[in-house]
Amino acid sequence: MAKNARAMRVVGVGDEVEIRKAIEEFADAFRAKDLDRIVACYAPEIVAFDMMPPLQHSGIQDWRQVWAKSLPMMTGEITIDMRNLQIDVEGNLAIAHALSHFAMSGTEGPDLWMRWTGVFRKIDGRWLATHEHTSVPADMESGKAILDLKP
Amino acid sequence: MAKNARAMRVVGVGDEVEIRKAIEEFADAFRAKDLDRIVACYAPEIVAFDMMPPLQHSGIQDWRQVWAKSLPMMTGEITIDMRNLQIDVEGNLAIAHALSHFAMSGTEGPDLWMRWTGVFRKIDGRWLATHEHTSVPADMESGKAILDLKP
Repeated sequence: MAKNARAMRVVGVGDEVEIRKAIEEFADAFRAKDLDRIVACYAPEIVAFDMMPPLQHSGIQDWRQVWAKSLPMMTGEITIDMRNLQIDVEGNLAIAHALSHFAMSGTEGPDLWMRWTGVFRKIDGRWLATHEHTSVPADMESGKAILDLKP
Repeated sequence: MAKNARAMRVVGVGDEVEIRKAIEEFADAFRAKDLDRIVACYAPEIVAFDMMPPLQHSGIQDWRQVWAKSLPMMTGEITIDMRNLQIDVEGNLAIAHALSHFAMSGTEGPDLWMRWTGVFRKIDGRWLATHEHTSVPADMESGKAILDLKP
């Protein structure tokens, strides 16, 4: 029993390392503004709840269009740093969440902390994101998005 | 092989039914404004990214306080309806996401569609939420939370 528990633990750690690599690959692809590399991080059936409207994007074609439109507008150098990253894995399903610092150099660039949740499925040996939820909190009284919070 | 596939499918359907029940139990508890029933839907280690600030809540004590403060302010009748609910389960880990219509009766009550992501772990035979992410999109140009989108 103890032996099994240990074996499972080792498997778990290996999976967690792979998920961390998948997250780091996305961050590197984003920093490099490489559309194909970014899109390759996602599964065909991706459902994305993005920080910006609309409510959701469905499917890799839709999601690719979002990136194809937004990347050319990102003229500055991109910073992405995650804090409080937690990962939970079972079999071929994994979930990760973190607070993510997103900033872009230049006077007009954003500089904010957002909340990020990612769901991954191991498909043909690769962990791909099947769902992503990124947001900032909202002040319901003023109707404002809150862009200046720090963890 | 076909037999195994079928058996796995049946297990999967059963798990999905249980997750749907867990989500419905939360919605019923929220409609009833029953603090203990609401809190009982969450795991001790819940990390919640709520629609409203702060960036995150950690642990059931923190999360209970949020509900204890907000429930008395909810004087109207509560509506919660989910659309596009998708569930993915493997072993004791499950992930669900949906667009959720949240409204409260009365002239001051909110009436909006938000994005909801829930992560569940089966603990001692019960599916409890270990992570929740609820949000509305933000308009980065105006700095406004977008509260009038419909699916």
